[in-house]
Amino acid sequence: MRAVRLHGYHQQPVVEEVPEPTVSSPLDVVVKIGGAGVCRTDLHIIEGQWEQAMGPTLPYTIGHENAGWVHEIGSGVTNLQVGDTVILHPTPTCGLCRACRAGQDMHCTTSSFPGLDSDGGMAEYLLTSARACVKLDPSTQPKDVAALADAGITAYHAVRKAIPLLYPGTTCVVIGAGGLGHIGVQCLAALTATTIVVVDRNPDALKLAEQLGAHHTVVSDGGQIAGVQELTDGAGADVVLDFVAEQGAENDGFAMTRPGGSYYVIGYGGTLNLPTLDIISTERNIVGNIVGTYNELAELMVLAQTGRVTLHTSTYPLDAAVEAIQDLDAGRVRGRAILVP
Amino acid sequence: MRAVRLHGYHQQPVVEEVPEPTVSSPLDVVVKIGGAGVCRTDLHIIEGQWEQAMGPTLPYTIGHENAGWVHEIGSGVTNLQVGDTVILHPTPTCGLCRACRAGQDMHCTTSSFPGLDSDGGMAEYLLTSARACVKLDPSTQPKDVAALADAGITAYHAVRKAIPLLYPGTTCVVIGAGGLGHIGVQCLAALTATTIVVVDRNPDALKLAEQLGAHHTVVSDGGQIAGVQELTDGAGADVVLDFVAEQGAENDGFAMTRPGGSYYVIGYGGTLNLPTLDIISTERNIVGNIVGTYNELAELMVLAQTGRVTLHTSTYPLDAAVEAIQDLDAGRVRGRAILVP
Amino acid sequence: MRAVRLHGYHQQPVVEEVPEPTVSSPLDVVVKIGGAGVCRTDLHIIEGQWEQAMGPTLPYTIGHENAGWVHEIGSGVTNLQVGDTVILHPTPTCGLCRACRAGQDMHCTTSSFPGLDSDGGMAEYLLTSARACVKLDPSTQPKDVAALADAGITAYHAVRKAIPLLYPGTTCVVIGAGGLGHIGVQCLAALTATTIVVVDRNPDALKLAEQLGAHHTVVSDGGQIAGVQELTDGAGADVVLDFVAEQGAENDGFAMTRPGGSYYVIGYGGTLNLPTLDIISTERNIVGNIVGTYNELAELMVLAQTGRVTLHTSTYPLDAAVEAIQDLDAGRVRGRAILVP
Amino acid sequence: MRAVRLHGYHQQPVVEEVPEPTVSSPLDVVVKIGGAGVCRTDLHIIEGQWEQAMGPTLPYTIGHENAGWVHEIGSGVTNLQVGDTVILHPTPTCGLCRACRAGQDMHCTTSSFPGLDSDGGMAEYLLTSARACVKLDPSTQPKDVAALADAGITAYHAVRKAIPLLYPGTTCVVIGAGGLGHIGVQCLAALTATTIVVVDRNPDALKLAEQLGAHHTVVSDGGQIAGVQELTDGAGADVVLDFVAEQGAENDGFAMTRPGGSYYVIGYGGTLNLPTLDIISTERNIVGNIVGTYNELAELMVLAQTGRVTLHTSTYPLDAAVEAIQDLDAGRVRGRAILVP
Repeated sequence: MRAVRLHGYHQQPVVEEVPEPTVSSPLDVVVKIGGAGVCRTDLHIIEGQWEQAMGPTLPYTIGHENAGWVHEIGSGVTNLQVGDTVILHPTPTCGLCRACRAGQDMHCTTSSFPGLDSDGGMAEYLLTSARACVKLDPSTQPKDVAALADAGITAYHAVRKAIPLLYPGTTCVVIGAGGLGHIGVQCLAALTATTIVVVDRNPDALKLAEQLGAHHTVVSDGGQIAGVQELTDGAGADVVLDFVAEQGAENDGFAMTRPGGSYYVIGYGGTLNLPTLDIISTERNIVGNIVGTYNELAELMVLAQTGRVTLHTSTYPLDAAVEAIQDLDAGRVRGRAILVP
Repeated sequence: MRAVRLHGYHQQPVVEEVPEPTVSSPLDVVVKIGGAGVCRTDLHIIEGQWEQAMGPTLPYTIGHENAGWVHEIGSGVTNLQVGDTVILHPTPTCGLCRACRAGQDMHCTTSSFPGLDSDGGMAEYLLTSARACVKLDPSTQPKDVAALADAGITAYHAVRKAIPLLYPGTTCVVIGAGGLGHIGVQCLAALTATTIVVVDRNPDALKLAEQLGAHHTVVSDGGQIAGVQELTDGAGADVVLDFVAEQGAENDGFAMTRPGGSYYVIGYGGTLNLPTLDIISTERNIVGNIVGTYNELAELMVLAQTGRVTLHTSTYPLDAAVEAIQDLDAGRVRGRAILVP
Repeated sequence: MRAVRLHGYHQQPVVEEVPEPTVSSPLDVVVKIGGAGVCRTDLHIIEGQWEQAMGPTLPYTIGHENAGWVHEIGSGVTNLQVGDTVILHPTPTCGLCRACRAGQDMHCTTSSFPGLDSDGGMAEYLLTSARACVKLDPSTQPKDVAALADAGITAYHAVRKAIPLLYPGTTCVVIGAGGLGHIGVQCLAALTATTIVVVDRNPDALKLAEQLGAHHTVVSDGGQIAGVQELTDGAGADVVLDFVAEQGAENDGFAMTRPGGSYYVIGYGGTLNLPTLDIISTERNIVGNIVGTYNELAELMVLAQTGRVTLHTSTYPLDAAVEAIQDLDAGRVRGRAILVP
Repeated sequence: MRAVRLHGYHQQPVVEEVPEPTVSSPLDVVVKIGGAGVCRTDLHIIEGQWEQAMGPTLPYTIGHENAGWVHEIGSGVTNLQVGDTVILHPTPTCGLCRACRAGQDMHCTTSSFPGLDSDGGMAEYLLTSARACVKLDPSTQPKDVAALADAGITAYHAVRKAIPLLYPGTTCVVIGAGGLGHIGVQCLAALTATTIVVVDRNPDALKLAEQLGAHHTVVSDGGQIAGVQELTDGAGADVVLDFVAEQGAENDGFAMTRPGGSYYVIGYGGTLNLPTLDIISTERNIVGNIVGTYNELAELMVLAQTGRVTLHTSTYPLDAAVEAIQDLDAGRVRGRAILVP
């Protein structure tokens, strides 16, 4: 089959022929990919940012945002049948550790992360597990929802954690209205009555954000902290969801957070520099976020199926993977790029 | 009356004569001080660390950890009588803003912080308000409990916020077993069944911590991160309560926190340096803490009155304030130093 | 001034002349009433249901749902000026007890409940306190928002408590789409993405509910339990908000609640009959609800001012109070009846 | 093998010979029973109280509180080896439904309940699943901990849910200091600093409760409601944990609960009779409880292994099962009766 393979850091992946995966243990599932999202994390992988944390053996297939149809199942799989339409939770989990037993899939002590530490879904077929599959209505087109498997779940997870802080009268700042952020804005509008302020350097992204539910937008041109202060009577936002967290956004994001408020780190790549006095004198929180739970992905699919979250995507054939990656890097993708094998 | 007054930053305060305060508005209360704690924050005030955040007019009286007896009350005070024994919440609040109406006293938008932004309690008398007074059993000696007014409430507040994370089987690291930390250890032992690990550079402080409920201690001599890893099967602690947060403790503290765990900043003076990748890849939280709520102070007094929290204090006469401050700075105080006018 | 006074239980109140109230203590406020809602609780008061719990001295002025303009303030009032437009929290509170200090206004140990235990707002003027007043934009018409002071806050409070249970994919049943219920439906739609099912015996109320955000409606004609089961694959609803809780609705409501779900009692007048085996074998909860907090009323005003909650009201002159009461009793009021002095 | 089998309701079970169970599906586990607890629920089963809810095919083996050693495992079991010492979660679960994925084992939509709806553990061997087994230190004697598998987890679950309500200064009433209650008292003492009041009709049970951490005891002789009121300044308890919930305890328990408080139903057999006015006017909650989660059982084992929860048990040989059941029914068992095959 065709697959998008990384052979070395700081070089573009290669689309090449590899053997198809097959089931070997009872809970294995092979999925025929219908859509695989291209994510800023793929750029970071190529740059080597994840090498130390994940340590995959090169070459390997990237792609951690996948949906498709069940192609083959192991002998112990009871919740799926060949042909089922599925979206995949990004981290197949053990189901037996404390984190799994508490519903905290992303903290499973023995999960894998296909596309980061093992073969991912930018390919015709992907090996995953029964526990990673969320069954969808058969009428769903995998390419239409694939972006929810990582961009979606990550944005939804952060918003869902923030709900108790976002009662009417509060303000939530969203930094970055791209692949994740444009989903985050819709989740905020669907699940809260907070005032949504979107910060981005790109005026087109801000226009899209307004259509999706943002109440105010602020161009990130140097005056973004002042812009948020002005919209919040000088106090700052109750919650800041930072989908960028690099190139200075991270320190801006903390500065935009009001006393007693919470700054959610979702993007990455930058470095926070925080005097502990600034953290305690205002009792602010910094909240880490990584993907989300299986149930959160299922909840997000409810929002998608009822039209409360819609995706803005551009599709590319699988063989055009490198072009898609370059378009993302150059800021030429509105919404999310999806590879269709 | 005698009072401990700061005339300039980077110089010792002076004990001198000033006029006694009197009530002027209906909810004012004047308290005759029975005990005023000496806190590491007083050292930080002298060093000018709080100048920008608080901006008091010099000279002024320091001392933000106070207990005593009601001396005079305003015409609208209904909850107190002259002669009542009281401990004082550190920040007299308005009672009308959203934060006050939500019980978040420390986020009152118009509170004062006597001893930081206005005249404090290292004096014979202190002007405060009806809302700041927690009434005590008349048999209580103010000097025995004064340290709960700031060191106590701050440690208790952080522990109380962490309770939901500290179920049986978890580990909580306490960095610093001094004025705040030795109270924090007792609060943890009273309110949770977590495994308590105390980290301090001072062996005597660690011995005290063991007597107060610590299950393990780690000397902070360079091997403290490895020491915590070893006690937690390499995972790190579920919660780290950092009562130091300066001189490197802050970055150690974050490093000791397990994936999905929370690092509580309580001390201050240092600077956190955190790649956002480290925050998100492990989904860790950094939680700010500042004093606590009025109700938390009242709850802590229940623990104190039932003997579950006991204070280790050294008393000094008010005129020996500078000596007490120097002893604290030199690490010569075990537990908490208390001035008695 | 004119006031609607109850002289005896089981008889209609009388509109008659009484002296105007005046301020006597520092935090007193006299409000010129602009709108006073008529509530099912007024019918229950007349029937004597509240006699034992509240024990007012007859005759007294009823009316516990009020908005207007500040007419006179006590010497200690700092948050209001004469002429301010205000809506009134139903229970003026002390601000000093543990419940007040925790933001739980409805559990203040020394609050009053004007209209239930003392003179209420079906009159030209009402005596209340500084802590009960929520300041509004001066352009607001009190008669347009008065119904939020009790019907609104009560519905909002119940919905807000249920938010964590109402993630996407859940179902919430609302029993009763009258004065409270029609607000509850809008709060659910504004604050959650749950599927809203409204149950009422009146087809017109169900039509209104659909316009306000209900996804499904069920006529309460004997088949209501089966109707809810059918809409929830036989499982029952995650949350049932029972705005009726009398005449059998209460036992229906519990029966409509799924295993692990929660039945919220908001209306009253009936009696629950629950084998403890039914409670434990399914681990269901029964949740009491009474009015709400001051901050919740302020939050609800944000929803109202941004058009997310709109009221359906019929106005009557103050002198037509008995007619309004009789219309409510006969089921002739859609939405809420408001008296305008 | 020998097993305790129920052949008909309202008659004693029979100890008789039956075939040993064997594994048939990949995640099956057969456990050699080391200890099987005798529970008031076994009495209720014999009385037919669970017939409608569970509908087991008679005859079947009772016993839902089990510990032992792994005897045989299915081909897909990865977390256990033959010979492991284990305690069993009472309800083997599917691991795939929303409740399982949220850690809410007791709400699994396809779990079984051995001993209630299928063959249980009053036998030499029991068929269960990999997900039900909590591995223990090999030095643990199953008969010493078996009572934690149902009595323990149930008491722990209720206490853990109540922790946020039980801050210092609150009062928690425990009704019934028998098999569950004596564990509940220890969990309260280990996890909270609340004031513990135990109500029981049996003076010996109250003596035991005092040794285990109760601060006050009240004999249930008709004056129990007044007794609790007296200990709480007339307000009632913040939380009531009712381990009886029959024969009038259920209505007493609600009456002992203060305004804003919560009444936890854990025992069963009686019927609550609650005017909805009483629920709403005081905003009280009634909270159902059924067993607990797998993680809660693991947490409880930590408390047991560190000596914070100790069991009071009487052992009987398996063949004396009927005698044990009769002793329990007659109130002759202190703590918990355990059958040892």
